[in-house]
Order: sequence, then structure tokens, then C-alpha cells
Amino acid sequence: MNVNTYSIGIDIGGTKIAVGLVDRHGDILYKQTTPTPSESRASILNTIKAIVLSYMKMSEKEGFKINGIGIGSAGQIDPNKGVIISGTKNIKDWNQVPIRDVLQKATNLPVWVDNDANTFALAEHRLGKGKDLNHIVCLTLGTGVGGGVVSDGSLIHGTFGGAGELGHMTVNMNGPACNCGSNGCLETYASGTGIAQRMRDQLANMPTDDLPAHIADYKQHLDALTSKEVFQWREEGYEPAVAVIDTAVQALIYGIVSLIHTFNPQAIVLGGGLVAHWPNLAATISKQIKDIGMASLVKPVKIFTSELGRDSGLIGAAMQVWHDVE
Amino acid sequence: MNVNTYSIGIDIGGTKIAVGLVDRHGDILYKQTTPTPSESRASILNTIKAIVLSYMKMSEKEGFKINGIGIGSAGQIDPNKGVIISGTKNIKDWNQVPIRDVLQKATNLPVWVDNDANTFALAEHRLGKGKDLNHIVCLTLGTGVGGGVVSDGSLIHGTFGGAGELGHMTVNMNGPACNCGSNGCLETYASGTGIAQRMRDQLANMPTDDLPAHIADYKQHLDALTSKEVFQWREEGYEPAVAVIDTAVQALIYGIVSLIHTFNPQAIVLGGGLVAHWPNLAATISKQIKDIGMASLVKPVKIFTSELGRDSGLIGAAMQVWHDVE
Repeated sequence: MNVNTYSIGIDIGGTKIAVGLVDRHGDILYKQTTPTPSESRASILNTIKAIVLSYMKMSEKEGFKINGIGIGSAGQIDPNKGVIISGTKNIKDWNQVPIRDVLQKATNLPVWVDNDANTFALAEHRLGKGKDLNHIVCLTLGTGVGGGVVSDGSLIHGTFGGAGELGHMTVNMNGPACNCGSNGCLETYASGTGIAQRMRDQLANMPTDDLPAHIADYKQHLDALTSKEVFQWREEGYEPAVAVIDTAVQALIYGIVSLIHTFNPQAIVLGGGLVAHWPNLAATISKQIKDIGMASLVKPVKIFTSELGRDSGLIGAAMQVWHDVE
Repeated sequence: MNVNTYSIGIDIGGTKIAVGLVDRHGDILYKQTTPTPSESRASILNTIKAIVLSYMKMSEKEGFKINGIGIGSAGQIDPNKGVIISGTKNIKDWNQVPIRDVLQKATNLPVWVDNDANTFALAEHRLGKGKDLNHIVCLTLGTGVGGGVVSDGSLIHGTFGGAGELGHMTVNMNGPACNCGSNGCLETYASGTGIAQRMRDQLANMPTDDLPAHIADYKQHLDALTSKEVFQWREEGYEPAVAVIDTAVQALIYGIVSLIHTFNPQAIVLGGGLVAHWPNLAATISKQIKDIGMASLVKPVKIFTSELGRDSGLIGAAMQVWHDVE
């Protein structure tokens, strides 16, 4: 008798939590998305538990097997201890959460947990652009910039799982302050918040009278500005917006060349919400990095945009289970 | 009968080649140093072969065993193929050298080869400041800046052994051109050549009349300036030299914080010829990195200065043999 087996993938982000039943090929049988509760860690954990338990009931009723739970979360994770060490500011109270123990106790299933950029890298390595490669570096360009590195076929975790914070590589030590405490991090230029902030810096110094009307509006409420507007204005050819995106590309190029010098990878895979707004990003980077850096290292590297789509977080989270049971 | 066993360590640098008999504890029975031949790769290989063969004769005569040869060389190395891919400009014709095959054929001994910064990291991991640590990042501050990373107990090599070029991480994308083709690399600020070049940049813009006499002398022959003079002038309190070294320290701090964010190591080990000129370097870095970067990653990291001494290259080269035979 051939019983279908699925793992439960859980993708915990600042705005939403996605929970899905995923097979070993990354195909999703069923998924459910819910806004991330903003009250407390208890309400987040309860929400997750409720969905997971409903999937377990579904498995009994429909006769398929669940082999484990894989979680990807924003923030710093200790995968050995199964603990969220420190989450993002976007998730309230998301620190020192022993999520593996909580879910193992509630379900009796084995549980894995890792940073969401690491699970993205895992998905790319198993199923995506890095499928047949042993050495890849992945960057997620979203609200922030995340990173995951597969070296010799395995994720690099470091001492307690904190490795791969590639958005916090300094590309300009004289650059703007980053919320991590350092300066000129890749994230200050090439993330959604970074792009918006660099645009605010420009607008703050320009007399309102000199601005096109629809841009002048934003000067009155700079907080409302997001990277979406900056990409829009760049499309319209508005010079200061073109400059902000050019600088973001420059930061990515120097950051990626540094990563190539550091890891000697076969490919770089770019993912995250910003990539969709960014026409020709991979092609531009691919062309420009060839002109700088050590030729033997830079020339062979392929630059890819992820094609795993919106569910890559979910799929990568679930892949942790398949990795360990194989 | 207890036969003593040694491996042959070979450290190939731009100015000298050191060949030694090293035991598993890193103790050196005998070593010989010779200037690096400048005629051709053939003369380098012949020089090495001659010394190695003399050691093999010595082993027959004195009744000890030689279990293999470990080579550390400047430049990019493919450790899997045993080939020097591209050496430094300081060694003539040192490209595409199948050194493993050449020495295996000449000696019938197993041969390992790696980049000299990687073998330095290996020595630190086995015998030095990283002895009981599984995650260390090593930087060699010399003519250039080299790097070696031990993650989860193993050296990170990347696709073909080119990983760990940590001197070519950009810390200032608007910074000075680096000979690697990129800009504002750590090496352009914090290496011997970088420090000398940054001092030349300063002097070039200053009227000779404004300079102290002994410094004005150098303005006439800027090529003769080395980092040694810059450290000397800094000791004398000469402001532009103080600024050059301060910038080198700043570059190291941002580079090291980036490496901590990337690798989540337990320790950073600094080695190379410059460290001796640089009073309190490890203490200064250790103090200043705590103020920047992600606290959870940066705070636990120890910053060490290597204590393996001048023979660390030789010892690290030899350790490759002990690693593989154990």
C-alpha cells in the first residue's frame, strides 16, 4: 500500500504566516495563510498550533501521512536548539521562543526550524536554480536583505545558527547608519526600507517647489513613502529616484563581488519581494560584476532570479524535514 | 619499535620558500629557507624538489619516516586538483602549476596543496588560538590581506578552492581601486601595500614645504615608501600617518563585523607580518566591534593575535598531511 507523505511547512513573516502540506518534490497539497497576530508570542504559537492540529486531523481523515514540521522564521534562529533567538521588530515579542519544543510537545512530530533566508537557500538548492550546484549564495531582497549560503552542499550556520546575515555586510563604511548598529550595510541601500530611506534623504534636502507635484505630496508625509514609489518614479525617469536605484544596484554589485571572493560559489540566487519590481536586475548584475573583482572567481558565476515564486518560504521550510528523513 | 614520523611542510611566498620537517604537534625538527627563485616556475620547482629529496635522504640515514608533503602557496589554489591556478605578481610565472603531480612523481609521497592563508587558518585551528573552536575566521595582514575560514571544523574552499579571499571584500564601494579590479577592498586600506599607497595619496597632495624634513625626503621617491615608515611616523604623532592607520583600523573593524555577520564565528585570528608593527590591534578591534553590528553575533566573538610565530606558514602547510592521515 502506498501512503502519500507530506511535511508541514511553516513560513513566519512580519505580516503573515503561511502553513502548508508539502511533498518531497516541493509540491503543495494544501496551504493556509493568516495575518501574523500582533498581540503576543502566545497568540502566534496558538495560531500555528491550531492550523497544524487541523492538518493532523485532515491526515487521519484522508489517510495521508505527516512526517514532520519545518519552520522558517524571520530573525535569528538557533537550529540546534530549535529556538527563535531574536525576531524582527515586525513581530512583537518574538524573542527566545523555544518553538521546536512547543510544537513537538503539541504534535509529537519531529520539528526543524531555521532562519527564513536559510530555508529559501535550501529550497533553491534542492528544487530551484541551485538544484545541481553544491556552492550557492542566496540573497532575499525584501523589507530587509537576508542571506543563506550553501557550501559543499550544506547550509553554513556558524556557531549558533546566526551565519548568513549577508544584508549586514558593510559595502560603505562611511555610509548611512543601519538599524543593526553598523554603517553602510548592503541592507541600507538595497532593501525596501533602505531604498525608501535613501529617497527620503534626497527629498529632505530638496526645496518642495523644485519637486514634481505628485512627488512634492510625499514630502509632507515622508513616512508613507515606500520602495514601490521609488521604483515607480524611476520608471518615470525622475532623476533622484534613478540615482537611488542606481546606488542600490551598485551596492548589490559590490556586495555580490565580495561574496564571490568570500565563498567562490557557482551561482548567486536573488529572491524576495523586491525582485519583481526590478526589471533586468540579474542581467545587469551579471554583466557588471564581470568588470570588477578577481576574474577567475567572478567570471564563472551565474546570477539567477528565483523562480520558486511566492511559496518559496513555505517550500524551503518544509524541505528541512525531507532533508533529515532521507 | 617506535619510528618517528614527520611531514614535509613547504611555505611558498613572494620572497622566500621555507621547507621543514614537522611532527603532528607542529614541532619543527629541521627547516631550510631559500629566496624564491625569480627566473621561472621550473627553477622554483627544481629548488623545492632538491630540498625535499635531501630530506628524504636524511630520513633514510637517520631512520625516521616521512608521511607526506603539505604545501601552502600565495595565490589561488585548486586543492582538489593540486594546482596553483594563479599566483601572486611577486612570483614570476606562478600560474597553472600542477605542483601536486610534479612532487608526487618526484617523491612517491602523497602531496596536499592549499592557499597560504588557508594553511594559516588550519594551523590556528589545529594548534593555535582556534584550537578548541569549530568556527574561526583568520586574516593575514601582510603585503596583502589573506583570509581563511574554518566553519564547522573544516576549511571553506568553495567551488574550486578560491574561497576566503577576504582581503577582497569591499568595505567602501566609493573607495580606491584595488589591483583585483574592485574598489575599496579591505586590502586597499589594511595591507602593507595599501597602507603605503594611502600614505602616498596623502603626501602627493601636500606641498613639500609643509612636510617635516625626513618625510619630505620620501616625497621625492614615493615608491620607496613602505608601511614601516607609516607606522614609524604614526608613532612620532605625524597626523597624516595617524589618519592612514586609523582608516586601516576602521576598515578592519567594518570588515571584521561583516565577517562576523556572515560566518557567526567564535573567534577572529589575526596574523601576518603587519601585526607585529601594530600595537594593541586585537584589543582595539575587540573593543570597537562591540559598539557596532548585531549584538548577539558580535558580543561573543574573541579577537586574537596569532602566537604561532614566523613558522606558522610552514606548520600550517604540514598540517594538511596530518589531517588526512589521521
